[in-house]
Amino acid sequence: MPKTKKAAKKPVKTEGKVTRKTAAKPVSAPAKSAAHAVSPLAPKSFAKLPPLAGVRLATVAAGVRYQQRTDVLLALMAPGTQAAGVFTRSKTASAPVLWCRQKLADADGQARVLVVNSGNANAFTGKAGMDGVREIAAEAATVASCSVEEVFMASTGVIGEPLPSHKITAVLADLVAQGAAGNWRAAADAIMTTDTYPKLATATAMIDGHKVTINGIAKGSGMIAPDMATMLSFVFTDASLSAKVLQDCLSAGVGPSFNAITVDSDTSTSDTLMLFATGKGARHPAIAKANDKRLTDFRRKLDGLLLDLALQVVRDGEGAQKLIRIDVTGAENDAAAKRVGLSIANSPLVKTAIAGNDANWGRVVMAVGKAGEAADRDRLKISFGGHVVAEKGLRAAKYDEATATRAVSGREVEIAVDLGLGKGASRVWTCDLTHGYIDINGSYRS
Amino acid sequence: MPKTKKAAKKPVKTEGKVTRKTAAKPVSAPAKSAAHAVSPLAPKSFAKLPPLAGVRLATVAAGVRYQQRTDVLLALMAPGTQAAGVFTRSKTASAPVLWCRQKLADADGQARVLVVNSGNANAFTGKAGMDGVREIAAEAATVASCSVEEVFMASTGVIGEPLPSHKITAVLADLVAQGAAGNWRAAADAIMTTDTYPKLATATAMIDGHKVTINGIAKGSGMIAPDMATMLSFVFTDASLSAKVLQDCLSAGVGPSFNAITVDSDTSTSDTLMLFATGKGARHPAIAKANDKRLTDFRRKLDGLLLDLALQVVRDGEGAQKLIRIDVTGAENDAAAKRVGLSIANSPLVKTAIAGNDANWGRVVMAVGKAGEAADRDRLKISFGGHVVAEKGLRAAKYDEATATRAVSGREVEIAVDLGLGKGASRVWTCDLTHGYIDINGSYRS
Repeated sequence: MPKTKKAAKKPVKTEGKVTRKTAAKPVSAPAKSAAHAVSPLAPKSFAKLPPLAGVRLATVAAGVRYQQRTDVLLALMAPGTQAAGVFTRSKTASAPVLWCRQKLADADGQARVLVVNSGNANAFTGKAGMDGVREIAAEAATVASCSVEEVFMASTGVIGEPLPSHKITAVLADLVAQGAAGNWRAAADAIMTTDTYPKLATATAMIDGHKVTINGIAKGSGMIAPDMATMLSFVFTDASLSAKVLQDCLSAGVGPSFNAITVDSDTSTSDTLMLFATGKGARHPAIAKANDKRLTDFRRKLDGLLLDLALQVVRDGEGAQKLIRIDVTGAENDAAAKRVGLSIANSPLVKTAIAGNDANWGRVVMAVGKAGEAADRDRLKISFGGHVVAEKGLRAAKYDEATATRAVSGREVEIAVDLGLGKGASRVWTCDLTHGYIDINGSYRS
Repeated sequence: MPKTKKAAKKPVKTEGKVTRKTAAKPVSAPAKSAAHAVSPLAPKSFAKLPPLAGVRLATVAAGVRYQQRTDVLLALMAPGTQAAGVFTRSKTASAPVLWCRQKLADADGQARVLVVNSGNANAFTGKAGMDGVREIAAEAATVASCSVEEVFMASTGVIGEPLPSHKITAVLADLVAQGAAGNWRAAADAIMTTDTYPKLATATAMIDGHKVTINGIAKGSGMIAPDMATMLSFVFTDASLSAKVLQDCLSAGVGPSFNAITVDSDTSTSDTLMLFATGKGARHPAIAKANDKRLTDFRRKLDGLLLDLALQVVRDGEGAQKLIRIDVTGAENDAAAKRVGLSIANSPLVKTAIAGNDANWGRVVMAVGKAGEAADRDRLKISFGGHVVAEKGLRAAKYDEATATRAVSGREVEIAVDLGLGKGASRVWTCDLTHGYIDINGSYRS
């Protein structure tokens, strides 16, 4: 029974019945599995998300795989809620991903229910996997009094293990009954796998002079790579925006956030990012066009929130001890800059050097050289934390080993690469590659 | 002074003068650097290479960077020797790589001298780096009585450190004077960096009924990725073949050998593979056309030797505990099969799972899915060591955890992926990703 991720939550007592109890400390693995400490890059405190009109949440320990922790989240949304999504580009996408893509088209962006489970990805589970999705959708539609087209789903955990969908269908009625506003922390807890902390963010934005709220949660700390959305992230707003507007905002926002992070260059079968707008409590007039000027602040705040969540994900990268920001400028175009940035961000040699406080700029030269984009040795300029380490085709004249070392020795490292060729620029983030990554991913499944 | 690789040889006593003494045990790092044990995948014994007519070798401890070990190799070749080469595609290629590419064109494939140093890559060293190459070539041409166009060079080690070329020019006359047939083991020793053992291979081939010899050496145990030749490898034959024939044989042979291995997906600035043919002692008529039927056995033996050397390199992958062979079949075409194979081979999650004896086929599904090539979940078939673990869109009906685990628990692991779409096939090799890799690459430079 191969699994891709190990559970990372401390067991909490439960009676096996529906409960919204959250893990006491979301840090320890279950018995027989190595315990993983909370990432040193974790936020000092978690964002407190306000209730959001039109969204009710409930979680439960359904025993899908993990024992004694919550593993199913249900979000019940008001009639008329609009939805948008970005999904993995994997050719072996999970059944829930295939379902959501289809339903977004079928239901014309209408959403009423989101069901998320952790512990089992329902990926590579054949016809039975899709049957399970259908059973869950049918039951959710019945208990929530909506169409199956309005039910969305996401699963994360083991690949290739049959999903015990009956354990999920069995709890849906209770979840709908118990759904309440404000359970955001519990929601973020329930969707974790190897995460060492829950990921939450909130923002307020002004639309046409009226305040709207945006709340988001996310999970995922390994098998993270860009160009494929993220692991799982769900964002909700009480603004009144059409599905088309939402999709435009989400597609624009994902590029410099979830698609600009990488932990290990591996891409999940299950990556899902969805944005829901309930329109409840919004005092602004409904907005149906993506180019509406009144969206400016909303887009900005949404972008910020997506980046916040994406950085929380990379800060929880498996084994991460350092957050690394890479700015590439002077490329032929932005896409080229991003490819160079990701070549650096995904280089095991760069990532291990930084783990070892080693200002090894030669490896950055190597990663630039292998990216396949235009580069000119003599125009290249590389800085660590603002200190120029290489330029004009060789080590910088004012290179200082102590300064360079200091720049890579803290919790946050900034690498800047100017290719000196054009105006293309891009910023990406990654984490270092440490023994912790090997520990988490290389120990035998218990 | 960033460096990309740490020295990996045990100090041996030397007086600082020219010597062909080899390291007693090529296993320990210098003082202040972590010691790296010989790879458990190392060959039980090293190939004994016979003398090769028209090639004389000499090595010396020139103190380029390492102390008390040999670090410069000179190969002196008979007049009329023909040469071919394959080099890194890095955009930040080293000065010696730029030199060799140019000289192969300028000298029309004529070669007399090869100079190789370890400890300094002479990469990202600006104008001074190319000046150093020119000084070494000029001195080599003088002492070997040939044209500078016939001098080839390769450097491996630190990136960005000025090459003390005077230390190399100072020893060339002695090296030429002391060059002797049969010093192959010493030659392989002198070019090592983080290698834990020297890499040697020999073969005999028949051309038109006459025996010819092929001898090769290689180095490189990290910063290894395909599509860019390898780190350094030099192959010599006494056959009488034109430069054009050699280039054709080499370009054909590199695909399924050095271009089919990956350790960490990182690509050196210095990758160089050269093939020299002295024509001395060859009793067969000179061959000048690449499509000559009499080349069949030579090509086959050369291919085998290149694969042998490439596998020696990947078996010495930094931290490697297991050799992993990945066969992809049923792809749309061979190139697609290779990309899928490399996606699996470069996946940190696949490599760490195998390091942990974890038959985690779900991660192979993931790696197939992210490769960007056509794949159909329901046609995909995955085997570990011949045991089918997944097919028809889900875990194989006869999947057996103990059998699958056994298949990934030995020193050699075989993964087979049938995409079920076409006739494209490819085989690639990699090693597992272990704590050893982090130790070697993540410890602070001493």
